Amino acid sequence: MIDLDELRDFITHQTALVSCMYANNETGAVMPVREIAEIVKEKGALFHTDAVQAAGKLEIDINEIKADLLSVSAHKIYGPKGTGALFVRAGTPQETTLRTLIHGGGQEIGRRSGTENVAGIVGFGEACEIAYKEMAGDRERIKPLRDMLLKGISNEIPDVRYHGEPGGTLWNTLNMSFSGVQGESLAMNLDIEGIAVSTGSACSEGKVDPSHVLRAMGVSKEEAASSVRFSLGRFTEKEGVDIVMKKLPGIVSRIRSV
Amino acid sequence: MIDLDELRDFITHQTALVSCMYANNETGAVMPVREIAEIVKEKGALFHTDAVQAAGKLEIDINEIKADLLSVSAHKIYGPKGTGALFVRAGTPQETTLRTLIHGGGQEIGRRSGTENVAGIVGFGEACEIAYKEMAGDRERIKPLRDMLLKGISNEIPDVRYHGEPGGTLWNTLNMSFSGVQGESLAMNLDIEGIAVSTGSACSEGKVDPSHVLRAMGVSKEEAASSVRFSLGRFTEKEGVDIVMKKLPGIVSRIRSV
Repeated sequence: MIDLDELRDFITHQTALVSCMYANNETGAVMPVREIAEIVKEKGALFHTDAVQAAGKLEIDINEIKADLLSVSAHKIYGPKGTGALFVRAGTPQETTLRTLIHGGGQEIGRRSGTENVAGIVGFGEACEIAYKEMAGDRERIKPLRDMLLKGISNEIPDVRYHGEPGGTLWNTLNMSFSGVQGESLAMNLDIEGIAVSTGSACSEGKVDPSHVLRAMGVSKEEAASSVRFSLGRFTEKEGVDIVMKKLPGIVSRIRSV
Repeated sequence: MIDLDELRDFITHQTALVSCMYANNETGAVMPVREIAEIVKEKGALFHTDAVQAAGKLEIDINEIKADLLSVSAHKIYGPKGTGALFVRAGTPQETTLRTLIHGGGQEIGRRSGTENVAGIVGFGEACEIAYKEMAGDRERIKPLRDMLLKGISNEIPDVRYHGEPGGTLWNTLNMSFSGVQGESLAMNLDIEGIAVSTGSACSEGKVDPSHVLRAMGVSKEEAASSVRFSLGRFTEKEGVDIVMKKLPGIVSRIRSV
């Protein structure tokens, strides 16, 4: 958990910008962005939050959180891949903050040249509307399934550990360690059974280092390497959880016995 | 027209890269990229060509043109907006040539982070296949329509000038000046009649400076400001040309009489 007092001491008058994920992509841990933003703004710095994982899962009120900048990505809310948005609060000093990376035609007030991905933008907008409408219902249906999976694994498999933030984890995410089991090996064995889990983030797929997120949370190298992430979504049914609980205990004990 | 001897003298051993459009976006003038590439490669520099306008219009043989880098864009060949491709010849020194602009997840071998626009990529691939199949047929059908429009305008409207490269203009493009007529005003009057023409490039829409392309070709400021571009495409029919020829002469003479 972030130590807010430590953060307050850390930010000086030379700090230009503080960026913090709204919710972590590996564990689902929800960060106290409202409190962080307040500290950052008090100190006169800019605050950015990466809300990619939080969008469609949590109510994000941009006026309640004093974020100057907030990013979201379409493909995390069932929108088209390759599309995202950056919220920029009116009055944010753009010349110094938002340096143009792609030059050329001068589209988007010179901020990002190139013909826009119109279909992607429209699809993202539609996905946002659907996500907003469906969010409460999704949560009501999916959170119990996630909790059922957590309970099932904890009850039926020894030496497991849940990497959640008590009371502050996204309702669709379940990151767990299985002592003595390589995450990669578990993921491959589950894949054969048609069950998709993830080790680390999608970006670091294929990399072998244990999750830097879990390591930063104080989890040992061995335990971090034995973790996988179950992500539930709008199309997860109870039947899926049942299948996992039917297959997982056997696979874990088979790997452990090798 | 590019003076190749001048170009040869201009490139020194310090020249890192020469970039030249394959075909110009405002006039359709086709550049002698093969000859340019040979000179550039002789001198030991890298050669890039922006083939956005040429793709789907001309046969581009990447092995015949000694380009190290070539860019194309999907929306110019009826593919999805916001998608493009950069050809990089094997052996091109990437560390120094292709500096990463977008950092983060490390996708695409770290060259461009972020989840890819998968639908766009697939659509672009499909558009390429269609463009390649249809190109000869498109040319056979559309070039005569463009020539008909050029002839019609030249015959029926006095004081016009065609800004083409003799023998080397894209077969779908027609850039013409109408002496004494503001291009913007002509475009707006045609728009009312349902006829879409362009003044300058799409990127500089809304800017009031006369085309820097025409100016560089030695066209006077006044004449450059009086130019518009007619672009014909896969869905242009003879009927469209007839409508333009029915409306355009009257509009030009009305504007001139004001």
